[in-house]
Amino acid sequence: MAEKYVVGIDLGGTKIYTALADLKGRLLAEVQVPTGASGGMKQVLGRMTETVKTVQGQAGVSGQPLCIGVGAPGMVDAQRGFIFFAPNLGWHDVPLAELMEKELAVPVRLDNDANLAALGENVYGAGQGTTEMIYVTVSTGVGGGLILNGNLYQGAAGGAGEIGHMILEPDGPQCTCGSRGCLEALSSGTAMARRAVELVEAGHGRAVLALAGGEKKRITSRTVARAAADGDPEAAEIIGSAARYLGIGLVNLVNLLHPELIVLGGGVMQIGEPIWSGIRREIDSRALEVAKKKLRLAPARLGARAGVMGAAALACNAII
Amino acid sequence: MAEKYVVGIDLGGTKIYTALADLKGRLLAEVQVPTGASGGMKQVLGRMTETVKTVQGQAGVSGQPLCIGVGAPGMVDAQRGFIFFAPNLGWHDVPLAELMEKELAVPVRLDNDANLAALGENVYGAGQGTTEMIYVTVSTGVGGGLILNGNLYQGAAGGAGEIGHMILEPDGPQCTCGSRGCLEALSSGTAMARRAVELVEAGHGRAVLALAGGEKKRITSRTVARAAADGDPEAAEIIGSAARYLGIGLVNLVNLLHPELIVLGGGVMQIGEPIWSGIRREIDSRALEVAKKKLRLAPARLGARAGVMGAAALACNAII
Repeated sequence: MAEKYVVGIDLGGTKIYTALADLKGRLLAEVQVPTGASGGMKQVLGRMTETVKTVQGQAGVSGQPLCIGVGAPGMVDAQRGFIFFAPNLGWHDVPLAELMEKELAVPVRLDNDANLAALGENVYGAGQGTTEMIYVTVSTGVGGGLILNGNLYQGAAGGAGEIGHMILEPDGPQCTCGSRGCLEALSSGTAMARRAVELVEAGHGRAVLALAGGEKKRITSRTVARAAADGDPEAAEIIGSAARYLGIGLVNLVNLLHPELIVLGGGVMQIGEPIWSGIRREIDSRALEVAKKKLRLAPARLGARAGVMGAAALACNAII
Repeated sequence: MAEKYVVGIDLGGTKIYTALADLKGRLLAEVQVPTGASGGMKQVLGRMTETVKTVQGQAGVSGQPLCIGVGAPGMVDAQRGFIFFAPNLGWHDVPLAELMEKELAVPVRLDNDANLAALGENVYGAGQGTTEMIYVTVSTGVGGGLILNGNLYQGAAGGAGEIGHMILEPDGPQCTCGSRGCLEALSSGTAMARRAVELVEAGHGRAVLALAGGEKKRITSRTVARAAADGDPEAAEIIGSAARYLGIGLVNLVNLLHPELIVLGGGVMQIGEPIWSGIRREIDSRALEVAKKKLRLAPARLGARAGVMGAAALACNAII
């Protein structure tokens, strides 16, 4: 049994996903438990500690991990290991790395979940071997991370890569961030469901409503995707619009950063060809020739493991 | 006299600006000559060679420069020293670095003019001492460059930083790049003049037209700025709109890259407070708190010398 190991923790709003990995990033043990955010921060910290012990037991290691990497949902300062705001946990201004280091007597590194999913895909997934890679995840929100010159880019404030808050329609729909017309407010699963509900409220959207069992509040992006697959033009229009804005957002990233690879993950990408073709159409017709010369698009490969593998990679990077 | 020196050349559509600098970037001699682009590429290359000899003579140096840095207007592959397209010169697919190295027997490094202005401001101007800096120049076009982790960022295709082609109104005005609603098509001096001409053609814009001597084709962004300064509300609206889009474009950059400094230069920024206050308003109201925590805005300091000083810095970087 490898005695040199790290632990990655993907702290989510609903579950804590923890894995023990060797220094090559191979997962030797993993566990998922409910976050129980409503129990308060101390209880969540306690559960995180328990998961570390669980994976240590599973892997049969003795001794402490060399480092623990943690992905947290929300706005973080990675350099300080500090969470400014994590709406899904209800946390404000939590010095998480410091608290965990006190508790566990192990160095702890922190970044936001989307950045660590980007790192995971870059080191172990669809982005292996690339140095200029953008990761975008489209699910209830739109998040992402930037791998520039081979490293996760953090910027001066320690949390760069907020791709979801790129404004594409200055007078567009209200975004949770306080601005308007952000990519997240135009293309996320939440945005797609909201548009379908608006249709229903305006007396349209029968196909979507039927698939939601006639209950407006049960409409999700999956309902919309199913209605579109069944040939409903209103649902297809909603998906086409989300894909168009995703494509335009990617054009902006391509023109700005000239990446070699964009990795796309998250539930909305599972809708498949209607989303992918809409994205490609905008890149083909709008991106600068010179900027897309070396560009490839690829689906994410690590699925739900991207975050925890990125957290392990963060821990490995910290000790190398 | 320093015998170790570099030469920077800012190759523009109308003039060639060449300077000789020591390895600390101090300019020891400089010269400007007309580009004469209509005479063809060979003639332009000949003039560039002449300017190198001129500054060598002025500075009284013997021996060759250690390196020559060149800023070219247009789309370039910096890694290969290659110009894909330089509309102001009428050049396509020119291996400029290679041609100059053959002619002068000196290593030549190339990048686009806006990237080198960014580097110039970072090394010698308003951005001294910063490692995460964005430079934006707003004049006839909108260009820029990214300093990330202390270095000019080039991306996989060797020419990143095309800030002017960030789409902010997907159905907005046609841009020269082929897309619609790019920052350049909304906020450049050219865009401001175009909007004023449209007003005049719709039977409005009397104040602007009067300042242009009654001739529509003489309307420029300066005419608009003067009319606004005289209290004309239509001109003020044009400037306010350009400032708003500039601000929104910067919000996108701030959310994405979390810079510590944005340096703003170019003729349109000289309009002063109406532009600056419009930009600040958007950043204040729209950018993520966490992203703007360490952000400062500053006016460019090197003026017309930014490009040539950046070219000298590029040459210095190449030999160190």
